[in-house]
Amino acid sequence: MAAEIPQWVKDLKPSEPQGVDILAQERKNSPINVAQLTDFLHGKEALDRKRKILSVLQSEPVFNKDQDYFDGRVDKWEKALARSKRLTTIALNNNWSDLDRRVANDLISEPLPYALHEGMYLVTIRGQGTPEQQKKYLKPAEEYRHIGCYAQTELGHGSNVRGLETTATWNADDKTFTIHSPHLTASKWWIGSLGRTANMACVMAQLIINGKPYGPHPFIVPIRDLNSHQLLPNVYAGDIGPKVGYNTMDNGYLLFNKVKVPHDAMMARFSAVDPKTSKYIRPASPALIYGTLTWVRSTIVLQSGSTLARGVTIATRYLAVRRQFQDRDAPQWEKGENQTLNYTMVQARLFPLLAATFALHFTGKGMMRLYEANQKNMQKKVTDQNNKRSAGPEETTPGSDLLADLHGTSCGLKSLCSSTAAEGLEVCRRAMGGHGYSAFAGVGSWYADYLPTVTWEGDNYMLTQQVARYLLKSARSVLKGNEPNNDTTEILSHYLKRQDTGSAFDVLGKDEDLVAAFAWRSSFFTFAALRARDEDKKSWNSLLVAFYNLSKAHSQYLVVKNFYETLQSTTNELDPETLGLMHKLFRLYALNTLVSESSEFFTSAACTTAQIRLAQQKALLQLFEEIRPHAVKLVDSWDFPDWQLNSALGKYDGKVYEDMFYRASVLNPLNHKVANPYPDSPVLYRNDAQSKYANILKDKARL
Amino acid sequence: MAAEIPQWVKDLKPSEPQGVDILAQERKNSPINVAQLTDFLHGKEALDRKRKILSVLQSEPVFNKDQDYFDGRVDKWEKALARSKRLTTIALNNNWSDLDRRVANDLISEPLPYALHEGMYLVTIRGQGTPEQQKKYLKPAEEYRHIGCYAQTELGHGSNVRGLETTATWNADDKTFTIHSPHLTASKWWIGSLGRTANMACVMAQLIINGKPYGPHPFIVPIRDLNSHQLLPNVYAGDIGPKVGYNTMDNGYLLFNKVKVPHDAMMARFSAVDPKTSKYIRPASPALIYGTLTWVRSTIVLQSGSTLARGVTIATRYLAVRRQFQDRDAPQWEKGENQTLNYTMVQARLFPLLAATFALHFTGKGMMRLYEANQKNMQKKVTDQNNKRSAGPEETTPGSDLLADLHGTSCGLKSLCSSTAAEGLEVCRRAMGGHGYSAFAGVGSWYADYLPTVTWEGDNYMLTQQVARYLLKSARSVLKGNEPNNDTTEILSHYLKRQDTGSAFDVLGKDEDLVAAFAWRSSFFTFAALRARDEDKKSWNSLLVAFYNLSKAHSQYLVVKNFYETLQSTTNELDPETLGLMHKLFRLYALNTLVSESSEFFTSAACTTAQIRLAQQKALLQLFEEIRPHAVKLVDSWDFPDWQLNSALGKYDGKVYEDMFYRASVLNPLNHKVANPYPDSPVLYRNDAQSKYANILKDKARL
Repeated sequence: MAAEIPQWVKDLKPSEPQGVDILAQERKNSPINVAQLTDFLHGKEALDRKRKILSVLQSEPVFNKDQDYFDGRVDKWEKALARSKRLTTIALNNNWSDLDRRVANDLISEPLPYALHEGMYLVTIRGQGTPEQQKKYLKPAEEYRHIGCYAQTELGHGSNVRGLETTATWNADDKTFTIHSPHLTASKWWIGSLGRTANMACVMAQLIINGKPYGPHPFIVPIRDLNSHQLLPNVYAGDIGPKVGYNTMDNGYLLFNKVKVPHDAMMARFSAVDPKTSKYIRPASPALIYGTLTWVRSTIVLQSGSTLARGVTIATRYLAVRRQFQDRDAPQWEKGENQTLNYTMVQARLFPLLAATFALHFTGKGMMRLYEANQKNMQKKVTDQNNKRSAGPEETTPGSDLLADLHGTSCGLKSLCSSTAAEGLEVCRRAMGGHGYSAFAGVGSWYADYLPTVTWEGDNYMLTQQVARYLLKSARSVLKGNEPNNDTTEILSHYLKRQDTGSAFDVLGKDEDLVAAFAWRSSFFTFAALRARDEDKKSWNSLLVAFYNLSKAHSQYLVVKNFYETLQSTTNELDPETLGLMHKLFRLYALNTLVSESSEFFTSAACTTAQIRLAQQKALLQLFEEIRPHAVKLVDSWDFPDWQLNSALGKYDGKVYEDMFYRASVLNPLNHKVANPYPDSPVLYRNDAQSKYANILKDKARL
Repeated sequence: MAAEIPQWVKDLKPSEPQGVDILAQERKNSPINVAQLTDFLHGKEALDRKRKILSVLQSEPVFNKDQDYFDGRVDKWEKALARSKRLTTIALNNNWSDLDRRVANDLISEPLPYALHEGMYLVTIRGQGTPEQQKKYLKPAEEYRHIGCYAQTELGHGSNVRGLETTATWNADDKTFTIHSPHLTASKWWIGSLGRTANMACVMAQLIINGKPYGPHPFIVPIRDLNSHQLLPNVYAGDIGPKVGYNTMDNGYLLFNKVKVPHDAMMARFSAVDPKTSKYIRPASPALIYGTLTWVRSTIVLQSGSTLARGVTIATRYLAVRRQFQDRDAPQWEKGENQTLNYTMVQARLFPLLAATFALHFTGKGMMRLYEANQKNMQKKVTDQNNKRSAGPEETTPGSDLLADLHGTSCGLKSLCSSTAAEGLEVCRRAMGGHGYSAFAGVGSWYADYLPTVTWEGDNYMLTQQVARYLLKSARSVLKGNEPNNDTTEILSHYLKRQDTGSAFDVLGKDEDLVAAFAWRSSFFTFAALRARDEDKKSWNSLLVAFYNLSKAHSQYLVVKNFYETLQSTTNELDPETLGLMHKLFRLYALNTLVSESSEFFTSAACTTAQIRLAQQKALLQLFEEIRPHAVKLVDSWDFPDWQLNSALGKYDGKVYEDMFYRASVLNPLNHKVANPYPDSPVLYRNDAQSKYANILKDKARL
């Protein structure tokens, strides 16, 4: 197509002013030191690593993204598999660390078919296999002779893991397990990498010994022939079909018809079947496994900031370049249209999300620190106890109090942060108006691929019950007069002490009062929920909405607190001007949340209606104005290479219209098709032999 | 693939209870007369028409939807063009009315490439061409020798139509216009049917006579050769590439390099260039064109109810079949899992949307009645004035007061109702958990295709400025002491009279008070905005968020009022039980809105905090419980055939898991691909010659 573009088209430029000049001016107008802020967010080492890996990927044709938005499902998957393979080869050849690979995946920015092999199959064997099992299963998996997946979710059961239908029945006679799918709904479903790629599966199945069920356990089961790649006998598996996004991945289904696996197929580090006695060996405390779930959720929290930041980066750059209408109150002599980023209706949608990118990022980092502190703590307790009692970790429940806090916190934050990121991306997309709907905007597919995050690792609604349970438990403990042992019980105690005095938070004047108002609201609704459940004896089901709101309130408090504390502990990493701007972003995030949730702040008397009105009508507008000059540089600090964003509208240099046009005219394969536009004719003019529908209208027999 | 399914797989059934039995039971448990309610919503004639057309479409292979979710972009468009052609042939052969065709499009449920030819090109010529122009351009278009599109939006300008860059310069010497694209941003963009299909375009271009601009006007311009289907000289056009949805449509770009068209290319019914004097002939009052925009927006309002109802139907049926977890408070002896539809957290998301489907539908009908009344009124005034003064319609501005009301109302409702439908669909999708993400759920693509509606025909944020302008004008008129002349000025006057007495609405006890509370809140914020603008002299830009909220408040009032009035005027069309249930849905919709917007109801003192709390904690939960037994039958009343929904999860008979499995295993083309799973190997095992990526890893030169 490129050759066909006439010279007069090639000579055209966008009308003045040029995007390049606009963004250059934006960057000149703000004194913010982007490099410094980038270092602060990510650290120098991470940035160097990214540069290094980016240059490797960009030099590999298979990672060229030019056609990504055009590919259909089959092509998407095939290309992604090619990328998975090449990435693995590069990683092995160059001795890349796990972190290097994660960075590469981040830059490639699409789910790859090996993901579950590396992220779940290997991890499960390493974590839950005995040394003997690791010897047998780990080596071929690490050498990519086994490509595995992790088969837990079923057609009929997701959240309720205990309800899984696939069975693993112990056969005492020949020391084997029979893996079986008794119903259609027992079919494994949604299993990443299973559809076409994997030849091995780690299958969660209900262990049955002598007719008695012992709950779900992991079993390693071969599913495809290692040479012919065909399904093994009595295994039926395939790809579950297209999805809203994630179409580079072959999520699969899997059914078994009484397939026998040996005794060592059951991952036996924590629980096992004694092959001699057929007795079930009780599992260890679930603390460590619990820990893994917490780690996964913490990672989601950490990633939510940068996930959202991609959309905010694209929208901010484009809306700075985009100009539409004159300002209605502009003086007569002022010519030209206004940058859309100058409209308060755009700022009110975009700037709170810009602030949220930092809020979520700092919260994620805080969450990770909490996780690591807890891991250390647990390790220490295990060691101490081992020294004292020579007891294995199986017999202790180390640090379970801290763990409960970590569990509650990570559930609430996973729910809030991933919802904020997902919904924020869609707000960014719509704020870009018509062009936001183009695939070339780069937000639609990113959003679609991210969407599963609000459902997996605990549905964002379901999880809030865990948070409520934790808060109710904490409140009961405080009411009993127990001393506070963590931040949650701290704020609940404080609330109890002050509840007859009421609150008087200077939310517009003092940042620490703003944090305290969020703590107050969370505590108020915790005790309200407790009364409803314990005193009014309301049913659990009737309280689910209240629990959801409570979890959100508490998690918003955590985000506000993390943002605030990060800035408090920041000294010479940021110059005073940049730090001051970050404080403004903190206030913007907190006040905007306070206004959106104003009815809860009223009801709990955490602030007055006058404060809310002032926040809405004055403080926020003021903050928009103060942040506006720095918006482009603030998103620059996230440091997304153009190659990663793959967005015409988000181009760093501002050449958004040129890139839109290039992608549409030069890269677009549909423009090779010549339609025959008349009703009673073949579909395509040249009657292309490859066209599925070329002849569909010629078959007069059907008319 | 079908042949490959082993017998043991074919023998599998979902675990008990079966979806079929569950939905049968749901229908048995509710006494609602579905047929009666369906008639009430749609009318018998519409139902008969739908049945007739459905049976025609189902018998045509080109409309078979089996592969729709699997097709890539190019296939999607090609199939859609084949469908457009076939549909047109059928319609012509069977003398289908416009209404018949709309029903067919509704059942097909995807944008078709002829849509803009029929919806905009023909309409523009009919509406804006002179009789001579109609003779020349209408016949070939009606005979489908010309396939047209409507080229208004440009790469650089959408909302701001006056800012369009394409020019049409009058050449007095040879009585022609030169159509030209001076910049890249002048490229027409997003133009439906233009990318590959159309050979004619109605182009909106800035009319220039003697160097003076006269604003955008419509010109008919040939763009592709009628025989070779290649672009004409100095025309450059193509498809703009893939989008979030709408990928069956070839939205296009279009550039002109000084293309000459004759004098009659400019549609001249309302304004023209005198070929002899080169003088511009002033346009008629924009009233009639204004009317068209209002009609388009009213149609969007009318369709929003059924658009949302598709998602609600699918989610309600699936969540009745889906069972997950036992109720936490369930007695020990109760076995089995709970239907997910029984959880209040699901009900709180789904039931307000169920209520909204009816609310939007009745509001749309009300909007249409208002439009038609106004059209009649205008027609009458034109006739009267013609009789009196023999003046042509060009010189009068008939019914402009009523029109302003209609304009404000249609802008606000278009914004609110299309946002409600779009966001509601996504809520439905997420409420279905993991399976909602599957293409087979049928909600994702429907949502994606609907999304442009929140941007086109007036961006949903931009439009709210029109509503605010209208409300401010109405408030000024009321303050001046003018008598109320419509419902808006009526409620504003009432508010003024009561403003020193305050309000006391029994929102939980009386339905009419609930409506009045919404009117009060709308009026309160209208006068607040007026003070901010007229007294405090705040800038227009600083008020945009307040205007947005005001428009939403007023439009929510209109929806609540329309729902209420529809039920008030309903007598024997519905039996008392069904009518009672509709009243409950009215209360659910209104109270749920009141709770979501509670801070505005507090602030305006339209109700007390106690009322809000009671609504949230008691009334809504009570309504959920009362509506729950009828949920399945209520969605049945929307009467969507399975063929239309094309959803595994929304199947009328409840066989959701069977259908998911069938689509994944039998219909899914990806399952024909056999992967070679090892990193250092070709991508596919059989090295399929059609595979784009089969050899990509073999080219060792690149490694």
